[in-house]
Amino acid sequence: MRTLTLNIATSLDGYIAKPNDDLSFLKLVEKEGEDYGYAAFTATIDTIILGRKTYDWVLREIGPSHYDNGDRNVYVITRIERPAVGRTIFYNGDLAKLVQQLKSGSGKNIYCDGGAEIVNALLEDDLIDEFIISVIPVLVGNGRRLFKDGRPEQELELISVKTFDTGLAQFHYKRKK
Amino acid sequence: MRTLTLNIATSLDGYIAKPNDDLSFLKLVEKEGEDYGYAAFTATIDTIILGRKTYDWVLREIGPSHYDNGDRNVYVITRIERPAVGRTIFYNGDLAKLVQQLKSGSGKNIYCDGGAEIVNALLEDDLIDEFIISVIPVLVGNGRRLFKDGRPEQELELISVKTFDTGLAQFHYKRKK
Repeated sequence: MRTLTLNIATSLDGYIAKPNDDLSFLKLVEKEGEDYGYAAFTATIDTIILGRKTYDWVLREIGPSHYDNGDRNVYVITRIERPAVGRTIFYNGDLAKLVQQLKSGSGKNIYCDGGAEIVNALLEDDLIDEFIISVIPVLVGNGRRLFKDGRPEQELELISVKTFDTGLAQFHYKRKK
Repeated sequence: MRTLTLNIATSLDGYIAKPNDDLSFLKLVEKEGEDYGYAAFTATIDTIILGRKTYDWVLREIGPSHYDNGDRNVYVITRIERPAVGRTIFYNGDLAKLVQQLKSGSGKNIYCDGGAEIVNALLEDDLIDEFIISVIPVLVGNGRRLFKDGRPEQELELISVKTFDTGLAQFHYKRKK
């Protein structure tokens, strides 16, 4: 069975963005030649699930090829239908059904890049198998939290923690069966 | 100058307690003979600051000697005056003034044991020098968050991360000057 991994960065106080989609705190750990394992991780996946707001932000700030490099299927979860672009599909059906269908298919693993709405919807149905969480050494004080109130309890197993000289600490957990 | 260290445990999703002061998730990492560095840490401090709710909870669940072992000064931050008990003082004055006074005095370091109200009040005035945060391998889903919204931004320096075979990961950060 393919696993679904959330791979995301947060501040120590648990925010994935400051107010107004401000991600400038990620710059604190930018370092030439250091990708914090991102290329190695993306080599293990061929499918990406993400929320529409995150998609539109990346489209605007980085460009369309960040997700859709021609080798992957990208599912953007949205309420409003949009025509597919390349291998990027805009999906407005049932999220749990999509994930179960993808997991039971063949191929490499599945990567969830956020944002918070999708993460919390996936956790609601216990659909995230692994968590790679990069903790940026800052308290940002305010913004959009990775974890919202009112999810089910879920025990985890710690696989590893990696630290980097920029102060980034990267947790890797998997769901306890 | 004496340092003030917050030493506290949270779930991966950032809660220090589940609803109704339920701390049962801490049992997930209980292990005979493993104190996660607590005795070594408390040997470096001679003063404890904590909130009244946390104090009353510990008094009820563990007993009065958990904080006041005869060798330490304990300051319980409260809105309502209470007479001192041994070396435990109930303080209803200005928190920042107390901390500045304690820091400029002599002695070992100062330990803050929570709860969230005191932590956030201290962060409001940038008074926490070091953070030892033990992350319990669980998403509890709901409860009292360690970090509330609306604090100032604060950059941190990662000192170390220790991992334990129970899955607990212990971060140690200090405040960037």
